[in-house]
Amino acid sequence: MTAFPFTISATDGAARTGAIETPRGAIRTPAFMPVGTAGTVKALYMDQVKDAGADIILGNTYHLMLRPGAERVHKLGGLHRFSGWPGPMLTDSGGFQVWSLASLRKMSEDGVQFSSHIDGSRHMLTPERSIEIQADLLGADISMQLDECTPFPCEKDEARASMELSLRWGKRSKAAFGERDGQNLFGIVQGSVYDDLRRESAERLIETGFDGYAVGGLAVGEGFETMCSVLDAVVPHLPGDRPRYLMGVGKPIDLVEAVARGIDMFDCVMPTRSGRHGQAWSDYGPVNLKNARFAEDVQPLDESLDCPASRDYSRAYLHHLVRSGEYLAAMLLSWHNIAYYQSLMARMRAAIAAGRFAEFRREFGARWESGEFE
Amino acid sequence: MTAFPFTISATDGAARTGAIETPRGAIRTPAFMPVGTAGTVKALYMDQVKDAGADIILGNTYHLMLRPGAERVHKLGGLHRFSGWPGPMLTDSGGFQVWSLASLRKMSEDGVQFSSHIDGSRHMLTPERSIEIQADLLGADISMQLDECTPFPCEKDEARASMELSLRWGKRSKAAFGERDGQNLFGIVQGSVYDDLRRESAERLIETGFDGYAVGGLAVGEGFETMCSVLDAVVPHLPGDRPRYLMGVGKPIDLVEAVARGIDMFDCVMPTRSGRHGQAWSDYGPVNLKNARFAEDVQPLDESLDCPASRDYSRAYLHHLVRSGEYLAAMLLSWHNIAYYQSLMARMRAAIAAGRFAEFRREFGARWESGEFE
Ligand SMILES: [Zn+2]
Ligand SMILES: [Zn+2]
Repeated sequence: MTAFPFTISATDGAARTGAIETPRGAIRTPAFMPVGTAGTVKALYMDQVKDAGADIILGNTYHLMLRPGAERVHKLGGLHRFSGWPGPMLTDSGGFQVWSLASLRKMSEDGVQFSSHIDGSRHMLTPERSIEIQADLLGADISMQLDECTPFPCEKDEARASMELSLRWGKRSKAAFGERDGQNLFGIVQGSVYDDLRRESAERLIETGFDGYAVGGLAVGEGFETMCSVLDAVVPHLPGDRPRYLMGVGKPIDLVEAVARGIDMFDCVMPTRSGRHGQAWSDYGPVNLKNARFAEDVQPLDESLDCPASRDYSRAYLHHLVRSGEYLAAMLLSWHNIAYYQSLMARMRAAIAAGRFAEFRREFGARWESGEFE
Repeated sequence: MTAFPFTISATDGAARTGAIETPRGAIRTPAFMPVGTAGTVKALYMDQVKDAGADIILGNTYHLMLRPGAERVHKLGGLHRFSGWPGPMLTDSGGFQVWSLASLRKMSEDGVQFSSHIDGSRHMLTPERSIEIQADLLGADISMQLDECTPFPCEKDEARASMELSLRWGKRSKAAFGERDGQNLFGIVQGSVYDDLRRESAERLIETGFDGYAVGGLAVGEGFETMCSVLDAVVPHLPGDRPRYLMGVGKPIDLVEAVARGIDMFDCVMPTRSGRHGQAWSDYGPVNLKNARFAEDVQPLDESLDCPASRDYSRAYLHHLVRSGEYLAAMLLSWHNIAYYQSLMARMRAAIAAGRFAEFRREFGARWESGEFE
């Protein structure tokens, strides 16, 4: 297994910036991966995602294995070709959605059996099948090990048992993945909110050996402070020379604080989901365009962003579109949100490179606290 | 009142091609106007509408007067600025939607009182108020007189009474419109399926004098043959030197047959509405992308069209998007459909200019009859 070259060009405290070189192009880090659940980043064209500055997107194994089916995607040339995204793509293992969407789940050491939320059909996901779907059939550039999503809150003995299972599944995932050129496999740290479990999980994953390390089981309701303290406990025990990926996070302030703790990669449905619900993200928090204060506001959302959605449409028009339930509301707000998230990553990369990340973090935090979007 | 210059550069039988020159640009005829109901052509960016070849779009007075409100649009700089469409725009009078969407309608000689389908609020639409909304507040380049939508089917005496009312409202619309440079007003022929009423309606509208003449009250369930026979009866009585607009029509075959009868302008929600329901239009009729036959079809929809939606996405991917209820399904199919409709108009204009419209019409009709989309 050949890990993608990961060059860290600058650090500032625990924060670092650099690039992961993949055969499909470089991923500038810290990176935010827009989520393309079912082979589409909802309400966006792939060109818009790329032009907004995204280097990599995430695809969902659970959704794609059910529809159109992993074998069908393979027959159609793989997920890059099928979806029209030529750049790097990371797929999740499917485990998280099995827990959150599927029904009639039946866990075993082997894997998890479940019923599709779409048509009730029965499926089995094992570490080996997940790797087959991700790496062989979809053709992901980065595959994720199958893990068990530890519920939150969770007693320590349960958290340990779950973590141990994820470690065993990690080993099986790696064995199934084997040696590959041009594709990578990431392991996932579990252990709920227990620092010693998190640390043990990290250390034993490293013994198995992965191309990158994800922190899973966060953004499940534990809250901002707890998330930060888990990162404080985990990140120092991850290899400095491999990418660190915080799964399913998060709000802009979460990204800034996680970057400050040494995280390199993120994914979250928030920018696109919020966009479909009339919300625009900003340094000041979420902005609800449905609010009457925008009814006659002729300003654009954010003219500092190099994105037509942020720059070329009045808030009054966006307000009208949201109130009217128009497709264009979701299209423009999702586009703005992806552009905003990418711009936030770019600003963090620049701040780290310039050695002024601490200042950026402080100023960003003040804007976020003020909440005064104007 | 200064009518926009309308130059007919070629005719072929009753079909004609040319251009209407407006201060916001030329409208090449025969023209198809995409419908931008609430200040947006659903699921499309205005750039896509323009690039697909549309010279003019239609806005709906009924929707805009209710939300965001005509006075508000005016305050925000008018409908062109509000919606981001800089080219010519035609607005309907609002009458048709009052009939089809509003409740608690109360007709009188003065106008029609109704309740909003959005919030139940009471409104009054008169010929004068409709002109105020269209020409003064929204800033339409072409306004339509308020008319009564004659139901179908309809006894002759009712059809006459309705036609007479529309004629009186036409006179009041013209008086309210007054003399304007840079804006035009069209009258509307009514008379249901009665040739003599249609002819009388046309002749009396011409006495009043409008900048263009629309044929209303069709596409209401009368069927293709009846629509054609009404056009046969009406069009010869309309002035040859002014634009003729067939309202609310229609399918591609309707457009071809109406152009053959001398119609210059069309509008219809069909391309965008179909696009939101998984249908792509073609010379062979509507194509249902949900159909299992497309599940592994790697061909694009129509590579002869200069539109990314038609050319750059496989039918298998579109099938998947439709089945998954993804925004991108509506976005791509609406885009393809608008591009297809514009391309159909361009092909008709070219055929008329080359004196081979009869051949085009015959060949198109054969494709349509065959229904063999491949
Ligand atoms: Zn998230
Ligand atoms: Zn129509």
